[in-house]
Amino acid sequence: MGWIETSIMARRGVSGGANGTTHRLSEEDQGEYHYVYGPYAKPVMRIAPGDTVEVETLDAFGGAIKSEADLPSQVLNMPFVNPQNGPIAVEGAQKGDVLAVQILDLLPRGPQPAGTTALIPSFGALVADGLQMLNVPIAERVKKMEVTPEGGVKFSDRVTLPYEPFVGTMGVSPEIEAVSSLQPDYWGGNMDCPDVAPGAVVYFPVQRDEAHFFIGDCHGRQGDGELCGVAVEIPATVTVQIDVIKGWSIPGVRLENEEFIMSLGSARPMEDAARMAYRDLVAWMVADYGFEESEAYFLATQAGRMRVGNMVDPKYTLGASMKKEYLA
Amino acid sequence: MGWIETSIMARRGVSGGANGTTHRLSEEDQGEYHYVYGPYAKPVMRIAPGDTVEVETLDAFGGAIKSEADLPSQVLNMPFVNPQNGPIAVEGAQKGDVLAVQILDLLPRGPQPAGTTALIPSFGALVADGLQMLNVPIAERVKKMEVTPEGGVKFSDRVTLPYEPFVGTMGVSPEIEAVSSLQPDYWGGNMDCPDVAPGAVVYFPVQRDEAHFFIGDCHGRQGDGELCGVAVEIPATVTVQIDVIKGWSIPGVRLENEEFIMSLGSARPMEDAARMAYRDLVAWMVADYGFEESEAYFLATQAGRMRVGNMVDPKYTLGASMKKEYLA
Amino acid sequence: MGWIETSIMARRGVSGGANGTTHRLSEEDQGEYHYVYGPYAKPVMRIAPGDTVEVETLDAFGGAIKSEADLPSQVLNMPFVNPQNGPIAVEGAQKGDVLAVQILDLLPRGPQPAGTTALIPSFGALVADGLQMLNVPIAERVKKMEVTPEGGVKFSDRVTLPYEPFVGTMGVSPEIEAVSSLQPDYWGGNMDCPDVAPGAVVYFPVQRDEAHFFIGDCHGRQGDGELCGVAVEIPATVTVQIDVIKGWSIPGVRLENEEFIMSLGSARPMEDAARMAYRDLVAWMVADYGFEESEAYFLATQAGRMRVGNMVDPKYTLGASMKKEYLA
Amino acid sequence: MGWIETSIMARRGVSGGANGTTHRLSEEDQGEYHYVYGPYAKPVMRIAPGDTVEVETLDAFGGAIKSEADLPSQVLNMPFVNPQNGPIAVEGAQKGDVLAVQILDLLPRGPQPAGTTALIPSFGALVADGLQMLNVPIAERVKKMEVTPEGGVKFSDRVTLPYEPFVGTMGVSPEIEAVSSLQPDYWGGNMDCPDVAPGAVVYFPVQRDEAHFFIGDCHGRQGDGELCGVAVEIPATVTVQIDVIKGWSIPGVRLENEEFIMSLGSARPMEDAARMAYRDLVAWMVADYGFEESEAYFLATQAGRMRVGNMVDPKYTLGASMKKEYLA
Repeated sequence: MGWIETSIMARRGVSGGANGTTHRLSEEDQGEYHYVYGPYAKPVMRIAPGDTVEVETLDAFGGAIKSEADLPSQVLNMPFVNPQNGPIAVEGAQKGDVLAVQILDLLPRGPQPAGTTALIPSFGALVADGLQMLNVPIAERVKKMEVTPEGGVKFSDRVTLPYEPFVGTMGVSPEIEAVSSLQPDYWGGNMDCPDVAPGAVVYFPVQRDEAHFFIGDCHGRQGDGELCGVAVEIPATVTVQIDVIKGWSIPGVRLENEEFIMSLGSARPMEDAARMAYRDLVAWMVADYGFEESEAYFLATQAGRMRVGNMVDPKYTLGASMKKEYLA
Repeated sequence: MGWIETSIMARRGVSGGANGTTHRLSEEDQGEYHYVYGPYAKPVMRIAPGDTVEVETLDAFGGAIKSEADLPSQVLNMPFVNPQNGPIAVEGAQKGDVLAVQILDLLPRGPQPAGTTALIPSFGALVADGLQMLNVPIAERVKKMEVTPEGGVKFSDRVTLPYEPFVGTMGVSPEIEAVSSLQPDYWGGNMDCPDVAPGAVVYFPVQRDEAHFFIGDCHGRQGDGELCGVAVEIPATVTVQIDVIKGWSIPGVRLENEEFIMSLGSARPMEDAARMAYRDLVAWMVADYGFEESEAYFLATQAGRMRVGNMVDPKYTLGASMKKEYLA
Repeated sequence: MGWIETSIMARRGVSGGANGTTHRLSEEDQGEYHYVYGPYAKPVMRIAPGDTVEVETLDAFGGAIKSEADLPSQVLNMPFVNPQNGPIAVEGAQKGDVLAVQILDLLPRGPQPAGTTALIPSFGALVADGLQMLNVPIAERVKKMEVTPEGGVKFSDRVTLPYEPFVGTMGVSPEIEAVSSLQPDYWGGNMDCPDVAPGAVVYFPVQRDEAHFFIGDCHGRQGDGELCGVAVEIPATVTVQIDVIKGWSIPGVRLENEEFIMSLGSARPMEDAARMAYRDLVAWMVADYGFEESEAYFLATQAGRMRVGNMVDPKYTLGASMKKEYLA
Repeated sequence: MGWIETSIMARRGVSGGANGTTHRLSEEDQGEYHYVYGPYAKPVMRIAPGDTVEVETLDAFGGAIKSEADLPSQVLNMPFVNPQNGPIAVEGAQKGDVLAVQILDLLPRGPQPAGTTALIPSFGALVADGLQMLNVPIAERVKKMEVTPEGGVKFSDRVTLPYEPFVGTMGVSPEIEAVSSLQPDYWGGNMDCPDVAPGAVVYFPVQRDEAHFFIGDCHGRQGDGELCGVAVEIPATVTVQIDVIKGWSIPGVRLENEEFIMSLGSARPMEDAARMAYRDLVAWMVADYGFEESEAYFLATQAGRMRVGNMVDPKYTLGASMKKEYLA
């Protein structure tokens, strides 16, 4: 990935090159998975900045939905959903630093059909019961899909979709809170944004010593907004290289790939997430790319892009981006 | 545009071919421009279904901002902004029909620099005063830009952006209301969605006899959300072909181009616009493409796209789309 | 009403005393009722400032729901609901003035049971279908109630509620828009706020010559928020005295009674209506009661009250108030 | 308090009478205060159902603002604000039970002036910076006020307000999350609702063994919405009697006093908190007062009251209430 050499990471003195140790975090290594992002769990592993980790993640249901007959209301045990690997302690990371996580690879694991989506009672953007309505809930339903890099996502006999995998949930521990892995926020978490994909570096603001990195909830693909609340959920092997950038303080999650830089905002209502994302993008353009503030505001107005990550989680996540060709 | 032959329009018996009369609606023909979408203005022109109209639109400021020294608070006279051409009466159109508007061309008019953007007090997604805050307003500013199809948008010495023109405001008259041309809604209006561009057909639900079509507010380009509230505003010549589809009842604006179908929702908060858009997309997939409802909901979850048109107008406009290759 | 002598109105030189002419606007005088607030209708009556008008209003359904067997989906003809009396032209009123409307009396008219409420498909704060959901709508239902000043509202065999009548919809014409009488905004309209009651003076910002005042939609009573979307709707005789205050410019609707002053905000999401209301209350305290701005902000924080008028209409209406004893 | 004998608590077999042991939890007993509601802290005390506890709370700033010269940005150390007493373990309480907390008394502690309010940068309902805006923040300011039960709140030379004390933050531990004491949610927390006052019983849904009760953030008084984000903050001695109701499962916080029952909802945007509150009130009326659901929906529409607790915290809290006289 040649662009890494010109990335923000590189400009701040971090190579991003694969010169560290490679660790493996298998299901067995992980043992007990976690359901909160917080400082109260003991690290499962300690790594050095620059190291790479291959992680075996479970799907968002912890594998409990084995067939289309396994209804969520029967097999899920709230709040024990969206299991996370970690925490991985990163040596030297401190509050006020940035953890730079480069996603190198993401592959489905386990028997086919590996992909699961579902209509879950009281959940999803187009159902009433989650919004405290009087209507009768819609019917539950599970759909299983074959998911492979080469064959894509076999959505149905009629439709096959491209394999465009990404990490649904990833981030660092808050300083004193321990928050459900279903929720996204400034530390990352359940952002469900399809740009958090192989080929991207994601920047997280470290909140505590050694960062305590969590990861899970991989998706074979997803549309904007994760409409029904459940993407193409897969158990996966995801490979990430983790670096620490000292002396870079950011208010929330940022992302970079070959094409663009992106600031992510997580909030409700949705316009607050959008404002948060664009406000940080403008600040980033001013700080790192030499734009005067109103000029950055104008350029975001004329050339900014907005990705709707999720519109179903406890906070909605949107990402405001700017093509690098306009930042040169 | 070969895809027109397989469009929804064609499937409903409307050719979309340029076999009608071509009319011209110049500034002089228009005379007095309009600032509301409503049934109380006398049509400036009556056309037959299938006819084409070349319209000379003013920019959103009615040309009042002639240089970067013309501050909005001094030269604008609210509510007389966002002037609209029309209404154009379309023979035979009735409440319950659909007006299909194919955008054939869009060119800047007048002397260069033709493009204007501005920071307007109390307006824009990242300023406080429009949200009833106690803070001091940010400074006003105007930026003028050269805009040509071949040279693009000369944003600054440093940045040139592609010319990607679209129609900011377009639609039909409500039945009994006359609503500001600054507002989008189910009848169209100020949607500020960049997909309302040459190469698209936009479908509007007719609300009254002869539809009474309005159009204006063309943009040389715009980012998602129209962040500061003002795109690259240009006076333009826009060419549209207008058809009537009998017996197709739709709840709001829909759009189609070679690549995708899109449902547009306009509402606040933003998630309501997003839900409205996706809800109609699901309904459209069920009605016209043979999907069972939960299957359409699942497919929108895994493959839907969401475009944030505007996040600054009285209602926010978002468009939910599905690629045609997944609908085949 | 002795407090009128010390009211804002009086301090601005308007007596509010009943020394003008009294007019009557019966159903027959009105003839055709109106369904939009706008400048395009011819005044039904012209009065002088200080005059009093007794108005015969229809209920929000125009009387179409005659029994509990008349289901809304069958007897209503959208958008022809919430019929309004007026417009009443008020001599001398100009854009930039305030129309001061003192509510003197409000009595039910017609045969008993005079009161109607209903569950209407796709409408109400606790139903999904208005929010574009996939759920099956809840069942329609109509409830008729006897409503008298002395006997109160006979809600059911089990519950009788006090007669606490108010005007659901009232205001002035916008300058160029004609907006559905179902919507509230800065000009008034369908605020559905129970404080717009006998004993109050309501202040509206005049938008055009002679103001063009509309009134309708009287309620026998209503809880905060008008939860299901339909209050105790009654046909009524409502008596108002109408004055003009020159040289007082206000951004939206204000209200005053013996106990408090109130600023009303109408917007979505609800917090924007709340901010709008409190922001104007703070400005009012600064302008008319001599508070320094941060002191007014502090006092609103410690002693402000917030009334949720409606949480069902196209914009939600909330009223922020301050007791007069703290303003002395 | 004679009404306790007819309360929901009593109807479920819990006396609420002061027949248990009285404990004291002084500043010294508490030692380290807590800044999250969660299961990871060791209980500071274990009590039996029916016991009473007198708690010495700190003010929301932990006493760091000693004079009007102590600016929040200088003396506060985020996230260590809003210190909480507890957790208090309650014997026998289990997930699925209700913790019934009767507030018996609330008195200011310490030297006068005991009350503090402040304008804090990036915080408050009428400032822009918390909403990610580009505007310059408003100036910080601190106001100190004498607060006594007999003399009230000495707001200024001009204004004295009644002493109407309540508990700003109170609740039970979530099951696996540890959430900032600045946030309200279904377990209670920072609701900032003035009805959580002496004379009320507050019902919390227990999430884990022995409930783990937290309390802090007492207020000398507050207006609806806690507009600037800071009430009349006081260090206090608050006395509560704590009971356990077995076999009563509730989805969120409920409250009861002599006059009414109330359901509290905490969410963003504000209408979601309002819906949540009303939805639960309707469910409560159906379950415990024998109303058919649409009848409860109608009655809430015509007689429900809505209290805006806070419109500044990470979730807004609103309370929907019904007078007991209509439930008889």
